[in-house]
Amino acid sequence: MLGHDGPVSEAFDAVDVIAAKRDRGELPDPQIDWVIDAYTRGVVAEEQMAALAMAIYLNGMTPREIARWCDAMIRSGERLDFSGLSRPTSDKHSTGGVGDKITLPLAPIVAACGVAVPQLSGRGLGHTGGTLDKLEAIPGWRADLDNDAMMRQLDDVGAVICAAGTGLAPADKKLYALRDVTATVSCVPLIATSIMSKKIAEGTGSLVLDVKVGSGAFMKDLDQARELATTMVRLGADAGVPTVALLTNMQTPLGLTAGNALEVRESVEVLAGGGPPDVVELTLALAREMVAGAGRHDIDPAEVLADGRAMDVWKRMIRAQGGDPDAPLPVARHQQQVLAPTDGVLASLDALAVGVAAWRLGAGRARKEDPVQAGAGVELHAKPGGAVRRGDPLMTLHTDTPERFDRALEALESGYSIAPAGATADLLPLIIERVG
Amino acid sequence: MLGHDGPVSEAFDAVDVIAAKRDRGELPDPQIDWVIDAYTRGVVAEEQMAALAMAIYLNGMTPREIARWCDAMIRSGERLDFSGLSRPTSDKHSTGGVGDKITLPLAPIVAACGVAVPQLSGRGLGHTGGTLDKLEAIPGWRADLDNDAMMRQLDDVGAVICAAGTGLAPADKKLYALRDVTATVSCVPLIATSIMSKKIAEGTGSLVLDVKVGSGAFMKDLDQARELATTMVRLGADAGVPTVALLTNMQTPLGLTAGNALEVRESVEVLAGGGPPDVVELTLALAREMVAGAGRHDIDPAEVLADGRAMDVWKRMIRAQGGDPDAPLPVARHQQQVLAPTDGVLASLDALAVGVAAWRLGAGRARKEDPVQAGAGVELHAKPGGAVRRGDPLMTLHTDTPERFDRALEALESGYSIAPAGATADLLPLIIERVG
Repeated sequence: MLGHDGPVSEAFDAVDVIAAKRDRGELPDPQIDWVIDAYTRGVVAEEQMAALAMAIYLNGMTPREIARWCDAMIRSGERLDFSGLSRPTSDKHSTGGVGDKITLPLAPIVAACGVAVPQLSGRGLGHTGGTLDKLEAIPGWRADLDNDAMMRQLDDVGAVICAAGTGLAPADKKLYALRDVTATVSCVPLIATSIMSKKIAEGTGSLVLDVKVGSGAFMKDLDQARELATTMVRLGADAGVPTVALLTNMQTPLGLTAGNALEVRESVEVLAGGGPPDVVELTLALAREMVAGAGRHDIDPAEVLADGRAMDVWKRMIRAQGGDPDAPLPVARHQQQVLAPTDGVLASLDALAVGVAAWRLGAGRARKEDPVQAGAGVELHAKPGGAVRRGDPLMTLHTDTPERFDRALEALESGYSIAPAGATADLLPLIIERVG
Repeated sequence: MLGHDGPVSEAFDAVDVIAAKRDRGELPDPQIDWVIDAYTRGVVAEEQMAALAMAIYLNGMTPREIARWCDAMIRSGERLDFSGLSRPTSDKHSTGGVGDKITLPLAPIVAACGVAVPQLSGRGLGHTGGTLDKLEAIPGWRADLDNDAMMRQLDDVGAVICAAGTGLAPADKKLYALRDVTATVSCVPLIATSIMSKKIAEGTGSLVLDVKVGSGAFMKDLDQARELATTMVRLGADAGVPTVALLTNMQTPLGLTAGNALEVRESVEVLAGGGPPDVVELTLALAREMVAGAGRHDIDPAEVLADGRAMDVWKRMIRAQGGDPDAPLPVARHQQQVLAPTDGVLASLDALAVGVAAWRLGAGRARKEDPVQAGAGVELHAKPGGAVRRGDPLMTLHTDTPERFDRALEALESGYSIAPAGATADLLPLIIERVG
């Protein structure tokens, strides 16, 4: 169709770009550059980007298109520069899971190894929690830092977990919100470029990705997770940011807690030398990758965890952002237990079911502007493979608003199974694969 | 993804509906009803409908989905009722072509046969002209009538060509504008339901469709045009509106003019018993279908054309809407001729090229709010198959703004070809096929 000449000052017409992808064409670099830039400026309308995103979802993008799309999104905003720091930087990104509090112990461990960790994080939406929501359970802690304050804290403390400034990859910010309402979220090229444009714009020297696989993750399927990991590792390499990905198990929640204050408590247990074995294992595996990615092969993260140096960094990091690491954490006003209906072995405990239950109890939000409850969530008393006895508590539900218990229990109803005693659960390993 | 609960009062969530079509599902009736209604109400956002339209474009709709989609669009607004008229009604719709002024002579011919013609029309966009733009070249003529005035004119004169009220199929009105900017125009299910929802809401008793095929039409390809015609004929039957379609040739312009006043002049020539043979042939073929569709098998449209009764209705129809049928038509201030470069036979004259040239000369618009020039356009002095001599005028270009000549000539540059004398042009018939 003709008739879409557009203002003469624009290099392309959005309709032509959409039509090219709709017809399975490969978009040339200048078209990709233009469409991302024009979308950021508001010249390409939301409905046009929605149509393009659906065409990309259904017709895909070539590796060259993906690389250019990512690069154009990085160039849509500012790019931080940590090259002035005395230490190398490394960052971690998780694709999101239930009970995934790993960032909390990880950042201070890696910082204690002499690698600066500029961890720009987000809030939770739906059944997965957000790192900032978790830390905000700590009395006084603030997520918002300007770039100068972030840089000072990186120099002084070595680790910062804060909200990403609005200047980074603004094209991604718009597109991310749009994909959420247009059923174009679960698409490897769009997920990969969204994550990597943000992470690369954040200016880290190296990057470790935790790509979750299983019921509680975006990627339910190992092949798709591997494709996402491979795509992101390639984008990192293309941008000169050494990137490694671990594919990790998200069939069942990480650790024994899902919920903001509950997860902070568990993270502090890890930093104190305790905590659930799976959280410790994954935290150290990711820490080793980050430290190695930053070129520090001389130091073992397990040591700085064992000797308390990581805990020291944690306390300084929390204090630097106004928080009191020694203050009691909020506790929900109401609790209810879920009891084991029979004797046996907990054969499965579904991450999605626990995530939805925690969300419904008040730990998560359905809409960006919703508040979250600091104390709400699910505490697990058994993990898959563990023996249980009839009447034993399997979980404790926490909320300030007890009318939420019913819908949380509903979510959990078919979320676990108990096998006869002696049966062995068929469990995936925690760390499934490394892509590097 | 979870998290899209939506307000409790809504029956569905737009994201679920989009995701279902994205994943090649068949949308159930209640989802189709809801999405059309919620889009009309603004609850489904433009970007959500854009994503759904692209998913429909790429994944299609089943005949059941198409029928329900059309029905839901009809139910989105009011439906006119002509059952109180003393005469049966019939309407014609063309999918749009270059030089397609057929409605102008057709409506009075059919009305002169005793069949009322409620012809709700649109304006042009891009390279095809709009019937209302053409009639507005007649001094004094007004396109806007309220329903009462339209009904009175149908009773008195038997024919009315006017702008469609905003109350008819408002869902289509929104979706049509959206498709235009999201590269989701050329999709049979969306085209068919757009046309038929409007035409059925307009309340006609029977309907004749002129589905254009060729370079100057939406449908470049005969198979796709046949699919569109078949889909629309079925939708008409489903809604109890007997519908017939003719597939007609749009490789080359209809008649010898493309442009508003130029086409009115040619239409009046036809009504006066002259005019180009192809315009006369197609007008009478469509008139016969309309008259037969309305159950009047006793009368031959060629007779009312020959004896001047159709011209009488034309004049009354124009006067009833404030126009002066005897006033001189506007003439463009500047003309330029295109001369034949060699002797031979005009082997081809591309409809799209002529349409774009007329548009660039000022006869059409790129944006809804642009004005059109009444006198601008292209006048043809030869048609494919005709002999031409070097230096003979092939076309005359008309415009009020002579700086437009260059871009019009550019559009025409490869828009025609001359074969050696004696060669025969391989021409498609004007009326290719009937679908009924």
